[in-house]
Amino acid sequence: MNGLKEKVLTLDTMNQCVRRVEYAVRGPIMLRALELEQELRQGVKKPFTEVIRANIGDAQAMGQKPITFMRQVLALCVDPELLSSSHFPEDAKRRAERILQACGGHSLGAYSVSSGIQLIREDVARYIERRDGGIPSNPNNIFLSTGASDAIVTVLKLLVAGEGRARTGVLIPIPQYPLYSATLAELNAVQVNYYLDEEHAWALDVGELRRALHQARDRCRPRALCVINPGNPTGQVQTRECIEAVIRLAFEERLFLLADEVYQDNVYAEGSQFHSFKKVLTEMGPPYAAQQELASFHSASKGYMGECGFRGGYVEVVNMDAAVQQQMLKLMSVRLCPPVPGQALLHAVVSPPGPSDPSFAQFQAEKQAVLAELAAKAKLTEQIFSKTPGIRCNPVQGAMYSFPRMHLPPRAVQRAQELGLAPDMFFCMRLLEETGICVVPGSGFGQREGTYHFRMTILPPMEKLRPLLEKLSQFHAKFTLEYS
Amino acid sequence: MNGLKEKVLTLDTMNQCVRRVEYAVRGPIMLRALELEQELRQGVKKPFTEVIRANIGDAQAMGQKPITFMRQVLALCVDPELLSSSHFPEDAKRRAERILQACGGHSLGAYSVSSGIQLIREDVARYIERRDGGIPSNPNNIFLSTGASDAIVTVLKLLVAGEGRARTGVLIPIPQYPLYSATLAELNAVQVNYYLDEEHAWALDVGELRRALHQARDRCRPRALCVINPGNPTGQVQTRECIEAVIRLAFEERLFLLADEVYQDNVYAEGSQFHSFKKVLTEMGPPYAAQQELASFHSASKGYMGECGFRGGYVEVVNMDAAVQQQMLKLMSVRLCPPVPGQALLHAVVSPPGPSDPSFAQFQAEKQAVLAELAAKAKLTEQIFSKTPGIRCNPVQGAMYSFPRMHLPPRAVQRAQELGLAPDMFFCMRLLEETGICVVPGSGFGQREGTYHFRMTILPPMEKLRPLLEKLSQFHAKFTLEYS
Ligand SMILES: Cc1ncc(COP(=O)(O)O)c(C=O)c1O
Ligand SMILES: Cc1ncc(COP(=O)(O)O)c(C=O)c1O
Repeated sequence: MNGLKEKVLTLDTMNQCVRRVEYAVRGPIMLRALELEQELRQGVKKPFTEVIRANIGDAQAMGQKPITFMRQVLALCVDPELLSSSHFPEDAKRRAERILQACGGHSLGAYSVSSGIQLIREDVARYIERRDGGIPSNPNNIFLSTGASDAIVTVLKLLVAGEGRARTGVLIPIPQYPLYSATLAELNAVQVNYYLDEEHAWALDVGELRRALHQARDRCRPRALCVINPGNPTGQVQTRECIEAVIRLAFEERLFLLADEVYQDNVYAEGSQFHSFKKVLTEMGPPYAAQQELASFHSASKGYMGECGFRGGYVEVVNMDAAVQQQMLKLMSVRLCPPVPGQALLHAVVSPPGPSDPSFAQFQAEKQAVLAELAAKAKLTEQIFSKTPGIRCNPVQGAMYSFPRMHLPPRAVQRAQELGLAPDMFFCMRLLEETGICVVPGSGFGQREGTYHFRMTILPPMEKLRPLLEKLSQFHAKFTLEYS
Repeated sequence: MNGLKEKVLTLDTMNQCVRRVEYAVRGPIMLRALELEQELRQGVKKPFTEVIRANIGDAQAMGQKPITFMRQVLALCVDPELLSSSHFPEDAKRRAERILQACGGHSLGAYSVSSGIQLIREDVARYIERRDGGIPSNPNNIFLSTGASDAIVTVLKLLVAGEGRARTGVLIPIPQYPLYSATLAELNAVQVNYYLDEEHAWALDVGELRRALHQARDRCRPRALCVINPGNPTGQVQTRECIEAVIRLAFEERLFLLADEVYQDNVYAEGSQFHSFKKVLTEMGPPYAAQQELASFHSASKGYMGECGFRGGYVEVVNMDAAVQQQMLKLMSVRLCPPVPGQALLHAVVSPPGPSDPSFAQFQAEKQAVLAELAAKAKLTEQIFSKTPGIRCNPVQGAMYSFPRMHLPPRAVQRAQELGLAPDMFFCMRLLEETGICVVPGSGFGQREGTYHFRMTILPPMEKLRPLLEKLSQFHAKFTLEYS
């Protein structure tokens, strides 16, 4: 009875859906990068002096400074004794008081209602109305969340049903942000890939969507369509025509739309503009405006604030069945509520200081500086990669990433296969070991068979980005030579 | 093609596991309480002037003040410009600097590694070692989380497998904290009830556990056992003998143990003491110490700090299979990381100021004041209910709740049935409408067939708690009379 027993929970007995989940952004490359940093700290000699993490869309980790106004509001909410300090501008104080008034016990330390603090949902609704040129938004359709991630998982969870060929299929772009593939694996739903068109700056082609959809009908019941715009990892910004076409298709084919719009403030390219699915859908009029089901996600993690650590996000649902919406609220209730500091931060995001507020000038200056630098870095990335033989890169129209395609010599591909690695993983691992540059292989996001990419953020500070891009280009040349 | 279509996502087409989830703590009573508050604000006449929310374990919502030191540390982390302000004590500043050093970009605004900031996991490990009299704790076995809720769901998720009679069964206490039943429903696992012994102050009886287990083997594969100690909703503190017996049974019957120990600082009754499962298991020696699998959960939401809104929590896993532990990390990576302000707050919880620190005296005074008041309120609750005819209440040894049993006259039960309500829901709803007192019916937590309870927190401020208890007792008498 008391001898050595096998564990109860092993790889074989555990949840096999979880086991099948893949997640590259924080996978082997990231783990190795952490080890390398440790080794550098311990004085181990390397061909580089620091690891540069261009693998994750985390602006502040790369040195971007928080927006002063937002942090002031938050500090006042955290420690209301500061409300009597002269250190803080009046508008930040008024804002903090307003938020605290809306909190249980006037404290960030109380749980909020599960859909998030009413006041903040109202302010999110007003933000959406301003963004969409006055199209109404109802606070009851807004659910705050623990980052956009949480809201995305919740909506996908609602959609999953059926067995065998009746299982829910969800269309996702390839390349995609791997939260989608991971969540679908975990929920045992069917991932249906549609390919973005690399030859046309990663445009979303409705013909390709239709192909994917019709082929998928043999093996599942496609019920939802995810669009990431601006795109991660691809950095494209979809045109209004494209969005209209997608909405028409979704309506005809009876697909619930998930619009991942967390990069809505990150549009850099001339001629590119962000169009929200909600706005386009509403302006298309009947039957779309009143019928097409949509969930649109946003986050405090991106944009110009980059407050990833606070995990503030929201989803707005449009035309969702009222009873389902209640089920969604119930589901969120089980985990009580999103973090209240994240909710408070989101408040500052959706209600920035106005022109007559004392914090306005500084806020605007900080915001514009961040956005201008991001735009310059997007441009620089494109410029350097476009001069690099063996690498091709679409313009970075928006978001925070480039997703260049690279040529890998057949012998490198063969060597990778011998090592049991995806060829681009092999490249990225070697890049990391030899240069300290940390990027994510394209295989982690999905790519057309036989093509190889990597995702690199545009977030390193300007003075590091140029040498980094050059070093990367040189390494690619060297690697190509080595395996030719 | 463009006529009025049925929604894609309806009650019938949605995830039926989600549809089956029940969650009473934030159910109809809570929603009605919110409405009543709204009506009061609008000037509608009611037989009461305020709604008293004794339905949820949310100390700060009921007026408890945050611990000054914790909020100071947090404010400094949020707005590091304050590090030069004389408003803050030196130890709070040093602490904030230490936390910021460990954050990406020295900012709360960066994502952390998915298991939580290394420094904070190390400090959690040291806290556990102090708590458990020096038994070692490895930071690699600690995963920070978005409240304990998140960690509990994650561990349950790992455990769920199988189909039909091979489906994972999870033993949970009845009455239980409904996160458990809700999560098992969502994951389509089998809930296996074992009843706590109301006649013996809600003790956990191993004979009853064995009964539940053996009966369950006909319909599922029981693989995990949850214990909530101190108990929610039942307020009991299990003895060391009981915990030993549970561990022996878990080992013999090959059950993964989940110990929900979020109320570890909330023990009031003389003679009661908190024993962590980790400590008991380790002190039991072989074979338990080196083999019994355990996950122990803790949170910043309860204790003396009551920082629910920050959603800081952790799980320590013991004897978990290394490969499964990696899978757990992968799963957590998909959602990036727990909120960083909550992690920072947890840091202050596990590393309070020491005797030589400037904040020590105030910290101790605040902590002791909260705990003494909670103890007094636990006592008062027991005293008043024990004098009330038709209500029986076990001593509130710990946690934040009483779970009194009440007699309901047969005609009240019948009336409830006519209305399609659980009898205790009927009682609680009437109580709310007539007195403004908001408590949760026992049926939301589970109870033996034919018995009726409600859960009431001990959190209202002392000056409100006594009249509340008396009003409740009087209402019960009136209600009983009405239906006799
Ligand atoms: C496309 C996309 N969606 C959602 C998220 C989730 O962000 P968060 O959960 O921090 O709001 C990210 C994060 O990188 C993202 O790139
Ligand atoms: C027994 C028990 N476990 C877990 C939790 C979850 O707490 P949190 O997610 O806020 O840490 C609660 C909250 O009330 C609880 O009572």
